[in-house]
Amino acid sequence: MTTRRERWREIIFEAETPAGKAFDVVLLVLISLSVIAVMAESVKEVRKAVGPQLYVLEWIFTGFFTVEYAARLWASRRPGAYARSFYGIVDLLSILPSYLGLFLPGGHALMVVRVLRLLRIFRVLKMARHVNGAEHLMRALVASRAKITVFFMVLATISLIAGTLMYLIEGEKGGFTSIPVGVYWAVVTITTLGYGDVTPSSGWGQVLTAFLALTGYAIIAVPTGIVTAELTRTDGDDSSGTCPSCGAHGHLPDARFCRRCGATLK
Amino acid sequence: MTTRRERWREIIFEAETPAGKAFDVVLLVLISLSVIAVMAESVKEVRKAVGPQLYVLEWIFTGFFTVEYAARLWASRRPGAYARSFYGIVDLLSILPSYLGLFLPGGHALMVVRVLRLLRIFRVLKMARHVNGAEHLMRALVASRAKITVFFMVLATISLIAGTLMYLIEGEKGGFTSIPVGVYWAVVTITTLGYGDVTPSSGWGQVLTAFLALTGYAIIAVPTGIVTAELTRTDGDDSSGTCPSCGAHGHLPDARFCRRCGATLK
Amino acid sequence: MTTRRERWREIIFEAETPAGKAFDVVLLVLISLSVIAVMAESVKEVRKAVGPQLYVLEWIFTGFFTVEYAARLWASRRPGAYARSFYGIVDLLSILPSYLGLFLPGGHALMVVRVLRLLRIFRVLKMARHVNGAEHLMRALVASRAKITVFFMVLATISLIAGTLMYLIEGEKGGFTSIPVGVYWAVVTITTLGYGDVTPSSGWGQVLTAFLALTGYAIIAVPTGIVTAELTRTDGDDSSGTCPSCGAHGHLPDARFCRRCGATLK
Amino acid sequence: MTTRRERWREIIFEAETPAGKAFDVVLLVLISLSVIAVMAESVKEVRKAVGPQLYVLEWIFTGFFTVEYAARLWASRRPGAYARSFYGIVDLLSILPSYLGLFLPGGHALMVVRVLRLLRIFRVLKMARHVNGAEHLMRALVASRAKITVFFMVLATISLIAGTLMYLIEGEKGGFTSIPVGVYWAVVTITTLGYGDVTPSSGWGQVLTAFLALTGYAIIAVPTGIVTAELTRTDGDDSSGTCPSCGAHGHLPDARFCRRCGATLK
Repeated sequence: MTTRRERWREIIFEAETPAGKAFDVVLLVLISLSVIAVMAESVKEVRKAVGPQLYVLEWIFTGFFTVEYAARLWASRRPGAYARSFYGIVDLLSILPSYLGLFLPGGHALMVVRVLRLLRIFRVLKMARHVNGAEHLMRALVASRAKITVFFMVLATISLIAGTLMYLIEGEKGGFTSIPVGVYWAVVTITTLGYGDVTPSSGWGQVLTAFLALTGYAIIAVPTGIVTAELTRTDGDDSSGTCPSCGAHGHLPDARFCRRCGATLK
Repeated sequence: MTTRRERWREIIFEAETPAGKAFDVVLLVLISLSVIAVMAESVKEVRKAVGPQLYVLEWIFTGFFTVEYAARLWASRRPGAYARSFYGIVDLLSILPSYLGLFLPGGHALMVVRVLRLLRIFRVLKMARHVNGAEHLMRALVASRAKITVFFMVLATISLIAGTLMYLIEGEKGGFTSIPVGVYWAVVTITTLGYGDVTPSSGWGQVLTAFLALTGYAIIAVPTGIVTAELTRTDGDDSSGTCPSCGAHGHLPDARFCRRCGATLK
Repeated sequence: MTTRRERWREIIFEAETPAGKAFDVVLLVLISLSVIAVMAESVKEVRKAVGPQLYVLEWIFTGFFTVEYAARLWASRRPGAYARSFYGIVDLLSILPSYLGLFLPGGHALMVVRVLRLLRIFRVLKMARHVNGAEHLMRALVASRAKITVFFMVLATISLIAGTLMYLIEGEKGGFTSIPVGVYWAVVTITTLGYGDVTPSSGWGQVLTAFLALTGYAIIAVPTGIVTAELTRTDGDDSSGTCPSCGAHGHLPDARFCRRCGATLK
Repeated sequence: MTTRRERWREIIFEAETPAGKAFDVVLLVLISLSVIAVMAESVKEVRKAVGPQLYVLEWIFTGFFTVEYAARLWASRRPGAYARSFYGIVDLLSILPSYLGLFLPGGHALMVVRVLRLLRIFRVLKMARHVNGAEHLMRALVASRAKITVFFMVLATISLIAGTLMYLIEGEKGGFTSIPVGVYWAVVTITTLGYGDVTPSSGWGQVLTAFLALTGYAIIAVPTGIVTAELTRTDGDDSSGTCPSCGAHGHLPDARFCRRCGATLK
């Protein structure tokens, strides 16, 4: 019995065996199909044409994900820890809305609940562990967190000041009806998004816009620089082993001999 | 007396003690709330619904910031230096507009003065010192200043030439009523902001737009490269050892001798 | 006979000899002209004015490319391998549509087939081999492939969640008629493209927009960082020496011993 | 006489002496003012209000620049070389349009000629030599030239294919009246400019837009990576001196002793 559970555990939770890999591929396809189905259902034309078929399909997906969730709970060594983990909650949220929908009357609440099925998309992120370097990337981003926060504080300050200035310059006539609208405009401008739904009409407004756009264009260098410097630095860390005889480090990943003293690297 | 003042000085100006940290957190919350209140007040609907409540709230914030400003002056070792420093002026500007508003009649002047309370947002930047690496980031930006200036000179030249060309190509019929409008269009285009409020209508105008957009797309690499190279270079400083005899730091990772005094590094 | 074929093989397939270089330049000019001709033909005014002339021109280009394709098959050492290679297929696709057009009646099918002639543009990419470093660039991109894939998975997840949220917030009244439209909006926003054809009209919609725009503005640092780190790391490979005894290359700049066989590097 | 010419040469062409620096500052101010005047003149309201004053001002600027050009010719060691150099031509173009304007009747030709005075802006670039690192930046850009060219070839190919696809998908009804318009749309989209003057209306058009926008968002990493890698690499070159006794290179800029053998660096 335990052996069977162990075998299943390997298939479901790990990806080293061929069966485990196949399981992940099937899962990825099912998640993608079910997400596409939820999206398609929101289009009026599609709902009218193939609504009932989508409903049946939905219950097939829900059935599979329910069985999978039960299997995970059963096969896991510590079911409680899995159930409380991020992916455990995402897995539960993938099936709960379908069942909840049964008990709800129609209307907006039902729609919101049904849309929640889209949280299944987060399960796709589980597949990231198959990719080399994903973890390294994550570590670099976590390491840059503090600096990125400072950057966002500066960005928020500039947006607030620029948006307020614009509110004073253009005023209600120019479409800047309040400071929040001004700040919305400033964020849209500094990120070089540029919808064009709120634009300057006065000369000074255009001057301020030009300055803000140039600022946004130039300071994107900052987060880019932070993340790149972090990735470059930790790249060096990854490719290193330290020479046991002379202590030189930073050898290339395929180095078998120390580049400084020629001793054999482990 | 001095001891008490010293203790307060630590709480207000420093962030090493638990009390100092708590003080900063309370301050951060109050600044954020007061900024949100000023922003909300500018929305007509909000002003109508909870105007009087916001007015009371505003005076609570002003009261607190006034007490804080006085406390800083009292606790500071050199009150004059503090009052003339950047943050001293920002602190003063955070409370002044509320008092000035009392002496002003209504209308535009009052509105401008009241909006000035938003300068409080700059006080948020003080919190940056809690973040590791903020100073390192600042130094890298200062070091890249000269190169970034050259970059902006080139950008301004391209924008001026492209905007003028567009003024000649499209003319008043195409919405390019003057050279300044053309330059505004060029800045909006080269930064890839792209509002769409002034767009080319002729074929040659579209060709010029395509070239300008591609230029902007490619040369964003320049400020990014400058800042990244600077951050990467000075990153080495952080990860390096200090010379035991002369105290120089920032040696290269494989350095065995101090580059300044020649002493052996450990 | 073989010598003549060899000589032609050198002219057509290689670019070391002056004749080979001249051949490539002529080819580049002809490809560009023929692409411009196809593009111009799609403009109604041009078609009316010089349609017959363009038709004649087209057959001149087709004639030349046909002769060139035959010459490549004849001169190639392994004609079958060439015909099945990427550029062999592109070369064939460059001439096929013109001949197919003869057998087709007018209408949409003919138009599509004639537009296929534009696939000639891919032949321009062949010229990339003249450029130093193109291969190095390609290798860096291939090496970053896995990380870039993870990045796109994250981007797709954020876009899906944000687009769905916006569909719930704004609904049909705001122009967000279905989840796919919401996702389209999210992609247009997170990439800072910002057409402005679908924009938020409610306050919460603008808040979500601001957050999504800032996210897109900040996380562009990730692919940039990945590619830059890869290019910086492999740059070291280029500037390094080759081991005289085992031929390993890509040693670190300060390497004194080969990392693979331990021999002394010059 | 020669001494006086030498002294003037130093003031005009060099920037080491205080007089030379002051000369450059005056020049910078005059160029900026004259450019602003030309721009202002193109605004109808300004022309009506202060047209005659601007005309007088213009002749003052022209007078000064004429004297300066003559002085440069006189003070230069090789007047011919200066006159044929890039800045020599720019200097001439700065004054020529004003004189040409005297011989031209009014109308479009006159307007074009008068606008040419804006070429003065290029003279601002001369000031770049005052900035440390401008040359280093230039060298890095020149070194990346070949790779950037390949990048643009790929970008042009993608834009052409995507624009043509869009022309087939959306057709004239969607506003994509010809392939050139499609390519214009593709460039506006891939650079994330996003005017919104030509947008997809069909579902497949929106899917293609999303893919193109994501492509543009991701591949901006390529030019950025190229320039950054070049700047980082040559940064190392700049900060290096080679140790005369052990040959180690790549020392920090302030190194006085070799980090490997402790020998004194020159």
